[in-house]
Amino acid sequence: MGEIDHIGIVVKSIEDALKLYTGLLGVEPSGEETVEARGIKVCFLKLGGTKIELLQPIREDSEISGYLAKKGEGMHHIAYKVDSAEDSIAKAKELGIKPLSDVPKPGAHNTTVAFLHPKTVNGVLTELVEH
Amino acid sequence: MGEIDHIGIVVKSIEDALKLYTGLLGVEPSGEETVEARGIKVCFLKLGGTKIELLQPIREDSEISGYLAKKGEGMHHIAYKVDSAEDSIAKAKELGIKPLSDVPKPGAHNTTVAFLHPKTVNGVLTELVEH
Repeated sequence: MGEIDHIGIVVKSIEDALKLYTGLLGVEPSGEETVEARGIKVCFLKLGGTKIELLQPIREDSEISGYLAKKGEGMHHIAYKVDSAEDSIAKAKELGIKPLSDVPKPGAHNTTVAFLHPKTVNGVLTELVEH
Repeated sequence: MGEIDHIGIVVKSIEDALKLYTGLLGVEPSGEETVEARGIKVCFLKLGGTKIELLQPIREDSEISGYLAKKGEGMHHIAYKVDSAEDSIAKAKELGIKPLSDVPKPGAHNTTVAFLHPKTVNGVLTELVEH
């Protein structure tokens, strides 16, 4: 709780992005993963206690293709660690924040996640991650 | 080196944003600062080893007013800790990344900073911070 789990960056090519990030910051990727159901490939870069998540579409109807076409490459979301995704959804609602779904979903690596609508969190697509 | 110093988020009102961030994540602001020369007010939120920097314009010709008018509230930049801002500018250039200036500038709290053009870093306005 009260920590950033990761920052998601949408890129056209993870391979090209890695050249910049490893070249500039000396960080090495901690493994790449293809998530067929979402039409994306992801790659994490460990930076201190947090991570950058590079997201690349692998097909035209991926969940980030619309974003990439409309906004181009760039920062996509911030994910915070929380004790309970369900409790956080309830707390968010009390604060006038709109969750994308009322029920948390299974995330990667055995996590439970919830997303909050960017329009209700200062323009930031916000993810809550329960480990 | 290899750590995220902070993530900058442009908001219309730090006061309103704090209600969400403290209410949702239980984080408290670590002090607010007005930077007259840049026309902005900033507020840091400590989250584990990194920080969120909330940026709010305090006048219409602030350095973030154009961004706010064009793109609205949202993620603005990512800042990475580096050993030397000057060396990092040189390294960036070798990688085909365009610095906003060839010479580092003084930043807040006795730091030296350099900014890299978002178009050359996967759409992310990137700041390099030497402490």
